[in-house]
Amino acid sequence: MSRPSEQGSGEDRLIARHFKPIATHPGALGLTDDAAFLSPPPGCDLVLKTDAIVGSVHFFADDPPGQLARKALRVNLSDLAAKGARPLGFLLSLVLPADITDSWLSSFAAGLQADAETYGCPLFGGDTDRTPGPLAISIAMFGAVPTGTMVLRAGAKPGDRIMVTGTIGDAALGVQLRRGAAWKLPIEAREHLLSRYLLPQPRNALAEAIREQASAAMDVSDGLAGDLTKLCAVSQVAATVDVDKVPLSDAARAVLATDANLIETVLAGGDDYEVLCTVPPGRVDGFRAAAAKAEVALTDIGVITPGGGAVFLGVDQKPLHLPRLSYSHF
Amino acid sequence: MSRPSEQGSGEDRLIARHFKPIATHPGALGLTDDAAFLSPPPGCDLVLKTDAIVGSVHFFADDPPGQLARKALRVNLSDLAAKGARPLGFLLSLVLPADITDSWLSSFAAGLQADAETYGCPLFGGDTDRTPGPLAISIAMFGAVPTGTMVLRAGAKPGDRIMVTGTIGDAALGVQLRRGAAWKLPIEAREHLLSRYLLPQPRNALAEAIREQASAAMDVSDGLAGDLTKLCAVSQVAATVDVDKVPLSDAARAVLATDANLIETVLAGGDDYEVLCTVPPGRVDGFRAAAAKAEVALTDIGVITPGGGAVFLGVDQKPLHLPRLSYSHF
Repeated sequence: MSRPSEQGSGEDRLIARHFKPIATHPGALGLTDDAAFLSPPPGCDLVLKTDAIVGSVHFFADDPPGQLARKALRVNLSDLAAKGARPLGFLLSLVLPADITDSWLSSFAAGLQADAETYGCPLFGGDTDRTPGPLAISIAMFGAVPTGTMVLRAGAKPGDRIMVTGTIGDAALGVQLRRGAAWKLPIEAREHLLSRYLLPQPRNALAEAIREQASAAMDVSDGLAGDLTKLCAVSQVAATVDVDKVPLSDAARAVLATDANLIETVLAGGDDYEVLCTVPPGRVDGFRAAAAKAEVALTDIGVITPGGGAVFLGVDQKPLHLPRLSYSHF
Repeated sequence: MSRPSEQGSGEDRLIARHFKPIATHPGALGLTDDAAFLSPPPGCDLVLKTDAIVGSVHFFADDPPGQLARKALRVNLSDLAAKGARPLGFLLSLVLPADITDSWLSSFAAGLQADAETYGCPLFGGDTDRTPGPLAISIAMFGAVPTGTMVLRAGAKPGDRIMVTGTIGDAALGVQLRRGAAWKLPIEAREHLLSRYLLPQPRNALAEAIREQASAAMDVSDGLAGDLTKLCAVSQVAATVDVDKVPLSDAARAVLATDANLIETVLAGGDDYEVLCTVPPGRVDGFRAAAAKAEVALTDIGVITPGGGAVFLGVDQKPLHLPRLSYSHF
């Protein structure tokens, strides 16, 4: 079950070599202790989140290690953004197959470090273990919001506008390309969709504005249709979305031009890591201004109404039939 | 890569059914949101730790699921104890093979709930994913200490007594029994060793006393010899331990009577989850009194000296040769 080591453990050496440069907070103690400490920012609540990605489930075995590291971090950063929180740091649990090389780890750590710096989110500690199975990267992320201000899924009210950042559906189409979908696309369109799957673009630049303006928010990870349905359920409201207002990239439009049925993949495919939020009408202008300042695209796609469930209206103003609202690994 | 789901995701239903009863803190929002929030206790530092256990690496496939859940929680609680911290809560990342049944999950959650209640450590959130590999349970644990008082590995001074809780070596011998070691032992001795491997007994009852009295501390997870060596390295001191003072259970003594060479397994085998700490001479009596009150066995096994490294003296007062100081999965 274990292999003996001569002096200290291989894990210690591995941690020191690759991960210490990412543990820049003094409370991380250079990863030389069993635990880390952190003085919470005064007047703040902590926001806590964990999300894991698993080889052959959430990514392909040949994805570049640096991109995997960044993806693992970004799927968690995306939740902080949607909750209106700023990142404080993270813990990393890495379950590694035996064939992982030192060079793989070095690339992985370099990707992690790049994003830890970009998002101001240092490593506080970690654990590395071997597995006979696929690679699994689990991150526990903690952020901060002023006390009592975490943005919830609950809170959407009838009349609120439904808004999303960025574009929807790219990553889900990117997965289909990785699996061999034979759509005729310009090379830039292919690359756009593939890159959107490989590396989410979490909207942390908009976190403060979301906290100030949104009545409810979540990140779109399991598919816009399913995630909006969940938000409505917790908020005890209904939603009406105009499908032709859902923001699409040129690449996604090109794919839909070849097969209009793929709109279902776009709306329910997931891995978008955009923010879905509801905004009271009086705050829409302020929110738009903040998004413009943060250089985050923001689109009004519909309205919250009384009732329950989410309806997606096609161009004919008839509800689209979506047999699948979201994708699940279960 | 994903399977479609009809309405909401299977993961949501799974979480609601099994894990919601453990998410008792209001900030966990009944696990209905993307993240949780927590108001940090005033005047406190957070103590952060993550540790994972992986099937066929840290446990056997047929270990009872409730015990696995408790073990995963306890290996992290043990770190909080050694750092002098009280538990606040945890995040759970569960990577599940396809053959995990609902009944398995139900037992797993029941074990987790029992310990979450015992240790006052509720679930704040989690993530469940499928894997084609073995089960992996990763926990991120957070605790609290009064600001600036987390007990470090650094801080041991020459003259400090070296103390350990409980007994050493039982779990490492328990693993060998699980692997088929054919020692002739009374049934109670076998069961003691097996249970010590299956279910650690973290010393959280002693956390406050450790914080008040210890100059340095860590939990013994990779083997007493290796862990003490690490503590000495960070504290920049040496240690001398009398091997015959190292506290052993009757069961461990019975095994050593059949094969004296197994002392190496006892000292370097790991999985003890006892606290190893150093205590200035003037505080030893106070620490002993606190341990007696907390009903935690405490043994003085040696002394910190100037220099570097840890020496284990046999009954003949000659240094034991330990080719392996600790066990590593790398």
